[in-house]
Amino acid sequence: KIHIESDLPFFEIFIDTPLNVCEQRDVKGLYKKARQGIIKGFTGVDQPYEKPDVPDLVLKTVECTIEECSMQVAKLLQQQGIIPASTTENSHIRELYVPDNRLENALPEAKKYPTLEIGEIDLQWVQVLAEGWAAPLTGFMTEDQFLKAIHFNCLEDNVNQSVPIVLPVRTEDKERLMNCPAISLQYKGKIVAVLHKPQFYAHRKEERICRQFGTSHPDHPYIKMINASGDFLVGGTLEVLGRIKWNDGLDEYRLTPNELKAKFKQMGADAVFAFQLRNPIHNGHALLMQDTRKKLLSRGYKKPVLLLHPLGGWTKEDDVPLPVRMKQHEAVLKEKVLDPASTVLAIFPSPMMYAGPTEVQWHAKARMTAGAQFYIVGRDPAGLPHPDKSKNCDLYDPTHGARVLSSAPGLPALEIIPFRVAAFDKSKGKMDFFDPSRKDDFDFISGTKMRSLARTGLLPPDGFMAPTAWQVLAEYYQNLK
Amino acid sequence: KIHIESDLPFFEIFIDTPLNVCEQRDVKGLYKKARQGIIKGFTGVDQPYEKPDVPDLVLKTVECTIEECSMQVAKLLQQQGIIPASTTENSHIRELYVPDNRLENALPEAKKYPTLEIGEIDLQWVQVLAEGWAAPLTGFMTEDQFLKAIHFNCLEDNVNQSVPIVLPVRTEDKERLMNCPAISLQYKGKIVAVLHKPQFYAHRKEERICRQFGTSHPDHPYIKMINASGDFLVGGTLEVLGRIKWNDGLDEYRLTPNELKAKFKQMGADAVFAFQLRNPIHNGHALLMQDTRKKLLSRGYKKPVLLLHPLGGWTKEDDVPLPVRMKQHEAVLKEKVLDPASTVLAIFPSPMMYAGPTEVQWHAKARMTAGAQFYIVGRDPAGLPHPDKSKNCDLYDPTHGARVLSSAPGLPALEIIPFRVAAFDKSKGKMDFFDPSRKDDFDFISGTKMRSLARTGLLPPDGFMAPTAWQVLAEYYQNLK
Repeated sequence: KIHIESDLPFFEIFIDTPLNVCEQRDVKGLYKKARQGIIKGFTGVDQPYEKPDVPDLVLKTVECTIEECSMQVAKLLQQQGIIPASTTENSHIRELYVPDNRLENALPEAKKYPTLEIGEIDLQWVQVLAEGWAAPLTGFMTEDQFLKAIHFNCLEDNVNQSVPIVLPVRTEDKERLMNCPAISLQYKGKIVAVLHKPQFYAHRKEERICRQFGTSHPDHPYIKMINASGDFLVGGTLEVLGRIKWNDGLDEYRLTPNELKAKFKQMGADAVFAFQLRNPIHNGHALLMQDTRKKLLSRGYKKPVLLLHPLGGWTKEDDVPLPVRMKQHEAVLKEKVLDPASTVLAIFPSPMMYAGPTEVQWHAKARMTAGAQFYIVGRDPAGLPHPDKSKNCDLYDPTHGARVLSSAPGLPALEIIPFRVAAFDKSKGKMDFFDPSRKDDFDFISGTKMRSLARTGLLPPDGFMAPTAWQVLAEYYQNLK
Repeated sequence: KIHIESDLPFFEIFIDTPLNVCEQRDVKGLYKKARQGIIKGFTGVDQPYEKPDVPDLVLKTVECTIEECSMQVAKLLQQQGIIPASTTENSHIRELYVPDNRLENALPEAKKYPTLEIGEIDLQWVQVLAEGWAAPLTGFMTEDQFLKAIHFNCLEDNVNQSVPIVLPVRTEDKERLMNCPAISLQYKGKIVAVLHKPQFYAHRKEERICRQFGTSHPDHPYIKMINASGDFLVGGTLEVLGRIKWNDGLDEYRLTPNELKAKFKQMGADAVFAFQLRNPIHNGHALLMQDTRKKLLSRGYKKPVLLLHPLGGWTKEDDVPLPVRMKQHEAVLKEKVLDPASTVLAIFPSPMMYAGPTEVQWHAKARMTAGAQFYIVGRDPAGLPHPDKSKNCDLYDPTHGARVLSSAPGLPALEIIPFRVAAFDKSKGKMDFFDPSRKDDFDFISGTKMRSLARTGLLPPDGFMAPTAWQVLAEYYQNLK
């Protein structure tokens, strides 16, 4: 009861040891004293021992060694999400790709089904689903899955899934396809996947938008696309015909969750911490990652690995494009601001939705799927300025993302590491964690300020960003117009 | 693994019985055959028995009787929400009333704190909180609780709480009260409660409205009130100074969850099924309740009790007012359309929000708190026409309420009984479950049609509603203008 009131989990563990064994061990000599009558009312001797009715765990200390008992406790705590599950134990993630040996037959089969042309963002979602980022989803959401996602941010079995992953279709396509056993999805005329047992349902845009974004403002960049999309959604099981490639020179960075897990294993990682980003890395970000690494080492991990994981799907027009960001990130690694030997730079194929506290759960869940046990969450994750510019404020409360993520259901294997705000410390000439007691020493270099410096060819203060990485940005902004 | 894929819960139960006891029992003679070598590879004899590492339950069949073992299994299944917990086992619900012996001192203490005048709906929420309907909430929501409610429809410990229960305050009141250790809440000049350790936070109306209602239409009746309310919310622990009464002649029907539980116990109920309503009862509703009762009897319950539970808080202008509804319900019971001996008619003090699938969870959770194990859910619960009248449709998909409720988290002790649509069967001259194969026989008597009949003094078809109950309605509508 005390535990419930304090929101502390409670587990009843039955140390199942016969009385005679306890008496033999008697490490403190208490049993002896009880037998001699020196201690009265001693449990097991002159007071009955009441066995727990339904213990959460039974430890048989006679039959098991101390190590075995400890492992059983550790396993329980992992299962209950109290301590993160270790990387190596994570099982293989189910992918939706047709097995290689079936690929030859799959394409002719797929050609028999009626086709639906999908867009670039739809294909990004196909990739997300195919690679297993949204496991256990096995295709675009059916209406029941959609309802669970928008109401509870979860799928069945209490797995977090905060954003709907859905395929909108036009009414005429729904009419044409609604009685087909399967549909071939084609992108730019090429069949990429088969959607089996399609289920059509109304794309209730107003309700979806409100619940997903907490606003219905029509100028929000993703909401704008939803409003322009089809009036129906179609869910079903996906079979994807071969790896999805974008042929932009960056496909080698698009590692699947299973590939990432294999890589972490190969590197000997005993802890993986993930950093999601859609912006250039400055030394404030780097400080955060270095700091997390240090903390993990001090907690006893021997080989913490950073998953530096820029989002690679659709982003709004004024965000820095993926190829530029990748060049910038590579420069940061080359200058060893981040340690290349313990960092995996890879691309997360999801589109960006700018859905704040709802979306940050998706960003974290996907990295958990890829084997991360630690997730760094920043200020105002997946946020943006309110699309109603007259409000002149952020759309989301900048603190809500980390708070909502920390209490989100269905992320058992993930520990959330909240961001500490970093800024340029003029007194030290470098980025450092903001100290409010001497706030005048700090300069918050905003995105706007950074862009204006880059565009005009000016340099930021020394220590703000690795110089060659800044060069990448400066070139991009100077060539923009 | 098979269970997970099929969304079936799995429990590993270790039947902890020594081999020699198994051999003694040997009900099928298999051990004997194994010892004789007739059966090869028999577990325990010539194949090892692998004990489960972390069983969900251990049954010691030597030390416990068959009855004790069965009770342990039943208890596990209740704890896991597989079977509803029995009424009598439900514990006392914590109320927020000041204990009687402290009441004398509490009022002078309360007078020392600065006061905040609250409105009628606020007071209805104070009553809801005070009586424990929203347990384990102990006051108006803090921001962390608010975030969990709007994002996950849950409180800590995975208890369902789909609607925010919050107290809006004006900016000037927040400025005045923000550093006080406690605030006295007064209604019409009388102190009704003390809010301890108040925490103020922004009333982010746009986000709250979107996430709670799935629409932001300003003409929605509850949204209109939210938009007109204060720009801050204040959470904290409530101490309520005595029972809240409305002195409308109906207070005797306002039973608290604990009073209802005591009543069910006193009636010898072994199953309680709840019916939420905010409309007059016609024979279609009655059919549904009779049918549920029959089903429970056929499932082996001996004394199912109906909690007939009209909502008594604020409703929109064109809903039938509570006093008229209560008179109508009493007439239905008096005519024995519902069995008075196995029905408890009581008032649920919550205001109505018209928040569809989000609100129906609240309606169900509150009844679970009051001891109901079964909840009847209808078509389009807590729904209304879209406030944008040009759309000419319901605001919510009428099927979503029951579907969302059935998969809602944090309602472990409640079995959801979906509504079957009833209509007036002209061929039988009575209300009956709609049979789509002979749909022309059925007449759906809409609310609009009912109102127009009542207003013009015409009678509905015989068998639509108990005649004296119809009379109550007819009088109300005829006196409306």
